[in-house]
Amino acid sequence: MPVGERVEIHDGIAKVTGKAVFTGDIKLPGMLYAKVLRSPHAHALIKNVDLSIARQLPGVKAAISFADIPQVPYNGCGAPDKELIHDQYILNDKVRFVGDGVAAVAAVDEETAAEALKQIKVEYEILPSVLTAEEALAEGAPCIHGGENNILTRIAFEDGNVEKGLAEADYVFEDRFITSKVTPASLEPCGVSVASFDSQGRLTVWTSTQMPFVVRGILARALNLPYGKIRVIKPFVGGGFGSRLGAISEPLCSLLSMITGKPVKLQFTREEAFIATETRHPVIFKLRTGMTKDGIFTAREMKAVVDTGAYATHGPFIAGIIGSWFSGTYRCSNVKYEGLAVYTNTVSAGAFRGYANPQVAFAVESQLDIIARKIGYDPVELRRKNYLKEGETWRFTGWPLECSVGLPSCLEEGMKRIRWGERSAPSSPSKKRGKGMAISMHCSGGRPRLNEVSSATIKLNEDGSANVYTGSTDMGQGSDTTLAQIAAEAMGIKYTDVIFSGGEDTDVNPFDIGTRASRQAYSGGHVVKKSGEIIRGRLLEHASRMLEAPANSLEIGSGEIWLKDNPAVRISVGDVSRYAQIRGGGQIVAAVSEEPPGNPPAYGAQFAEVEVDTKTGEVAVLQVVACHDVGRAINPTVVEGQIEGAIQQGVGYALLENLVIDKKTGRILNDNLLDYKMLTFPDMPQTDVCIIEAPSRTGPYGVKSVGESGLVPTAAAIANAIFDATGIRICELPITPEKILDALNLKE
Amino acid sequence: MPVGERVEIHDGIAKVTGKAVFTGDIKLPGMLYAKVLRSPHAHALIKNVDLSIARQLPGVKAAISFADIPQVPYNGCGAPDKELIHDQYILNDKVRFVGDGVAAVAAVDEETAAEALKQIKVEYEILPSVLTAEEALAEGAPCIHGGENNILTRIAFEDGNVEKGLAEADYVFEDRFITSKVTPASLEPCGVSVASFDSQGRLTVWTSTQMPFVVRGILARALNLPYGKIRVIKPFVGGGFGSRLGAISEPLCSLLSMITGKPVKLQFTREEAFIATETRHPVIFKLRTGMTKDGIFTAREMKAVVDTGAYATHGPFIAGIIGSWFSGTYRCSNVKYEGLAVYTNTVSAGAFRGYANPQVAFAVESQLDIIARKIGYDPVELRRKNYLKEGETWRFTGWPLECSVGLPSCLEEGMKRIRWGERSAPSSPSKKRGKGMAISMHCSGGRPRLNEVSSATIKLNEDGSANVYTGSTDMGQGSDTTLAQIAAEAMGIKYTDVIFSGGEDTDVNPFDIGTRASRQAYSGGHVVKKSGEIIRGRLLEHASRMLEAPANSLEIGSGEIWLKDNPAVRISVGDVSRYAQIRGGGQIVAAVSEEPPGNPPAYGAQFAEVEVDTKTGEVAVLQVVACHDVGRAINPTVVEGQIEGAIQQGVGYALLENLVIDKKTGRILNDNLLDYKMLTFPDMPQTDVCIIEAPSRTGPYGVKSVGESGLVPTAAAIANAIFDATGIRICELPITPEKILDALNLKE
Repeated sequence: MPVGERVEIHDGIAKVTGKAVFTGDIKLPGMLYAKVLRSPHAHALIKNVDLSIARQLPGVKAAISFADIPQVPYNGCGAPDKELIHDQYILNDKVRFVGDGVAAVAAVDEETAAEALKQIKVEYEILPSVLTAEEALAEGAPCIHGGENNILTRIAFEDGNVEKGLAEADYVFEDRFITSKVTPASLEPCGVSVASFDSQGRLTVWTSTQMPFVVRGILARALNLPYGKIRVIKPFVGGGFGSRLGAISEPLCSLLSMITGKPVKLQFTREEAFIATETRHPVIFKLRTGMTKDGIFTAREMKAVVDTGAYATHGPFIAGIIGSWFSGTYRCSNVKYEGLAVYTNTVSAGAFRGYANPQVAFAVESQLDIIARKIGYDPVELRRKNYLKEGETWRFTGWPLECSVGLPSCLEEGMKRIRWGERSAPSSPSKKRGKGMAISMHCSGGRPRLNEVSSATIKLNEDGSANVYTGSTDMGQGSDTTLAQIAAEAMGIKYTDVIFSGGEDTDVNPFDIGTRASRQAYSGGHVVKKSGEIIRGRLLEHASRMLEAPANSLEIGSGEIWLKDNPAVRISVGDVSRYAQIRGGGQIVAAVSEEPPGNPPAYGAQFAEVEVDTKTGEVAVLQVVACHDVGRAINPTVVEGQIEGAIQQGVGYALLENLVIDKKTGRILNDNLLDYKMLTFPDMPQTDVCIIEAPSRTGPYGVKSVGESGLVPTAAAIANAIFDATGIRICELPITPEKILDALNLKE
Repeated sequence: MPVGERVEIHDGIAKVTGKAVFTGDIKLPGMLYAKVLRSPHAHALIKNVDLSIARQLPGVKAAISFADIPQVPYNGCGAPDKELIHDQYILNDKVRFVGDGVAAVAAVDEETAAEALKQIKVEYEILPSVLTAEEALAEGAPCIHGGENNILTRIAFEDGNVEKGLAEADYVFEDRFITSKVTPASLEPCGVSVASFDSQGRLTVWTSTQMPFVVRGILARALNLPYGKIRVIKPFVGGGFGSRLGAISEPLCSLLSMITGKPVKLQFTREEAFIATETRHPVIFKLRTGMTKDGIFTAREMKAVVDTGAYATHGPFIAGIIGSWFSGTYRCSNVKYEGLAVYTNTVSAGAFRGYANPQVAFAVESQLDIIARKIGYDPVELRRKNYLKEGETWRFTGWPLECSVGLPSCLEEGMKRIRWGERSAPSSPSKKRGKGMAISMHCSGGRPRLNEVSSATIKLNEDGSANVYTGSTDMGQGSDTTLAQIAAEAMGIKYTDVIFSGGEDTDVNPFDIGTRASRQAYSGGHVVKKSGEIIRGRLLEHASRMLEAPANSLEIGSGEIWLKDNPAVRISVGDVSRYAQIRGGGQIVAAVSEEPPGNPPAYGAQFAEVEVDTKTGEVAVLQVVACHDVGRAINPTVVEGQIEGAIQQGVGYALLENLVIDKKTGRILNDNLLDYKMLTFPDMPQTDVCIIEAPSRTGPYGVKSVGESGLVPTAAAIANAIFDATGIRICELPITPEKILDALNLKE
């Protein structure tokens, strides 16, 4: 039974032996090395770029600025299923954040390229800049993209009547929450590609991406090439988390290859990844919530201001989806939402694990804690009263909820494991301990608002092994392992007999929208299962002929087929495959491309215990109990890995991570792993991951999702635990010792 | 209309610009170079191989003989659809021809490998050898593979009663014909591969092959690896002609990679390709033919002795198929055949363009010329009386002939073009001119006796271009071009929008038995067309929704879809493809794997005019008129190229080519391109290729075949022309000046 097993991770050996080839490892004959000159100014017009000296350096094969290339606007997120604001250029005559590209060179080695950058003279006309959403919205603020203001999207809706609901409430709560600008800082720095434009006019791009087909689409637009002339190859990816959803270094790298006729590598440094690749969106939330004394919502209102940074990319969708996350989790007849997305002169925000749900959960779950304590309810009990039940309409999809809500089990198991209601003794008198919790509800893909097409093709070999090709991209999260298990299960063969390829090559692998929205197990798994079942059906047909028994009298598993009534009569899948190929008229093959049938939410309840040092303000997270309903854990090790990794990011989000932007210059001051504080192994809290399986009716083998959900409730659970310990409420991330000390002082 | 057009050859630019990567061009990091120590003896036992000095040479990573490796018998032809005689070993303790492998080394460079070979000491026990089929059959001949004699196959059948038929004949003809041992000598020497056995136990082999899936199967057996652990990649191939049908250098190369843990290249020299890779089978024919004075066969009998060389490989099938070629072309109620395949101590024979049909045609068509002249019929007329008509049973398949016999048109057109019946004046008094002709009938694949599975998968891109993957291997003959045209036609898109991959990678491309038996246009074309039509159907369904018109009111072509009644209303295939992918729920994909419905014969009539110098015996071929019914010429340039290339080999077969084996030592004396005489460009006769199209009912767009047929009748047509010029009949190939002078002298 490959599904449910802790099988060996598909790419495990390659990674631990160092054999895995990442984009940065690729070296093509005659390959050039590119580097980008970046703006030191947050906002400026480029009056002139003098490339003459750079171009004369021996070994420099190209040096370009905006003046040398066609100005084709594109959007780096490139979602083909959306109306996009195209406001980015490979190089433009205006820079909009510190780190924005000004010029680029390609040279025979990195040293020469670096030297050439130094020889470029740029004349800037510096413009006033805005570094926060509030500044951007201020009257008379400088406009980053022309137009009248810096607002790129305004989204609003109201269901029911919020004012009436608030009037009917026993209690009305008004709170403001602010989330920070954080960056994924994957092990493999974001922004690395190799491009080779060949003599037949075909462009091949190796790139570390989550969405090879989307990258192809962006390149087609930005470079004015037909899709068929572009091939995107995805080597191993060292962590994506959303940051590799679209084009990063690819358009510039490709253009330099087209100009020079040589292969070109463009690999951002760690510092460039910090200052010039996408972050999570900072959001300012205002919440108004009406509640009865029985703990029932009468009205819920959210206003969100989303800072998209210098370019639109995902900004409009983030402004929209915040309303869905907000309104989706709890039942309430009167709901109102307004979201604004605004430009600032900071590096663009983009997709980052959770796609605004962590921000929303921090606000909503923090406020719910405030409410529970105020009206005298246990926080768990208050959530139990209000979470959405089976059959109710989930505002995220507009569809009735599937009858597989695992939240009650998550809550029950979590309370037990954290010893909810008990307070343990602190390690010293100046320290205080407390417990907090929060819940999450996350999507499994984006239906119906997003295109959820996945595809799989399978061909069976003579020994009963199978080549499985999907467009589903593994970026380190383990989808290759998960989907190979589903393939094996569906076909009835061994996991080790699946030769799996996930989204490695746009020429070879069938289309998939890409890895986003926690979709691969559900959506990728759907087509893999369906195509695997076609293979299984064909196997049984042929075996029926070979064994002279009706197909429905046969059983298949682990690469063998036998008579249900007489298991001694058996035949190997390899024998059947050979028979089909040689005597039965054809190789057993299948190809499926479609959307999955639904979008079942995955649930989570996280419980945190903290100890706050009231002298220093430091918070130690003693333990995190994470109970997640994933529908079905195809591979528990992969699921646990996803949740543990998410907790690492969630704790960092709660307490440590933050891009510190210099208010004067707009520069990111902590653009390196020494100054940007992330949890490393010794910093990790004790984590207790509990997998709850409330199988989805529509997911392959009951699967929902797990890719993002583990991070969604963490920050709020910790904030709530800090309140439980200290009685202080921090409404702005990260919850630093300074903020705690300030609040403690204020309280005293 | 892509079908029928002289479109740009698929791999043309890559080849003429030198960008095409052949196996010999591949260089992997850390790659070792292998070399083989070959036997100087035609037949010997190996008593000892001392590798100790070779192994100690710096840079030598492996040195092996039979004693170091498991002895797993295999058959290098590896046909999975046949019962095979497994009598080959990667290295064995017996050598059976001069050039047989004795030991092998892998070293850091070629020089070190060559030096290591010199340091190997071999102790042989020399055995008596047999170099011809007649010697091999003689009483008391040494047995090459043990057993009682050197016969590996005896095949016999009789339809009707030949003795009765002969008794009823007005004339009985008894003749003996002998064909030579020739080698294809492709531009890229046969025997080159690179193998890499990786840390995960997976073997990747790059090799110049016609049948990547068959090579995989042989490696699975010879190396005891599951199919799923082997990946065979076919780079560009520099000519196959049958010589690359199975395993050549791959098993040894792979074994050396498995032993050393490093990538290994094994590339035969031109001389090694001559002495150690497969040749055409020499055959000795005895014919007895009964005929009425009205020119009707009463009986036909053939006895054939096939010299398979040192190993079985294709020998048994050649002995069998000769009976089919012999009995297939002409109508006769009484037919008898006996075929023997025998071992000799010469390099193995294998598949070579025509697969024994050129040998049979030389015998049968030469004898028919003898008969025509004897009984006073025009040779064309005699063939017209006897060739198989539509609906009659073709003994090759056992099926009734398709109603598409293009032979009459071939004959008519050929007679016109050669000015049949007219004799032109010789260029000097000592020279004589004459004309001769012969016909051919060849298969389009091997149904029903061979597995004819081909497969295609197609996926449509957002711009209306399509990735087409088949298992059909292009070895330079042009099948990639032909199949890409069929794909474009079937889908309704432009040829230039097809991104085609034919049999390049066993992991990626779906199964195909390989390129043999002139099958790719018919069998590969069948699945490409069928999968393309699935794509077209899906396109029309989606377009019907988009244009709000019934699918059957729409027309498609050149990447556009329009209303039949109102062509101004149109939409691009790219738009429909995007719609399907993003809004219509899935990428448009198709996967088909099956056998084609039939096996229509391709016909040819070739007419040659020669001038024989009676002083020197030299023959000048003045012109060859080649009229070939190919069913449908998907690309006339490809078809003409195939026929012209075949004529080059056919004229060489008739007059020049022959591996001269030293009677004492068994060595091939002309193992290089200086001494082995092949036609080069200036030697080519004037050729007049005429394509006849009698469309097959079962072939895609009417296709039959052309890969081999152009070579089948050439030697006989030239022999018959020589008779017409001189009155002498040479029954043994090649027809050298010596043989002609001897015969002229004898005649005088």
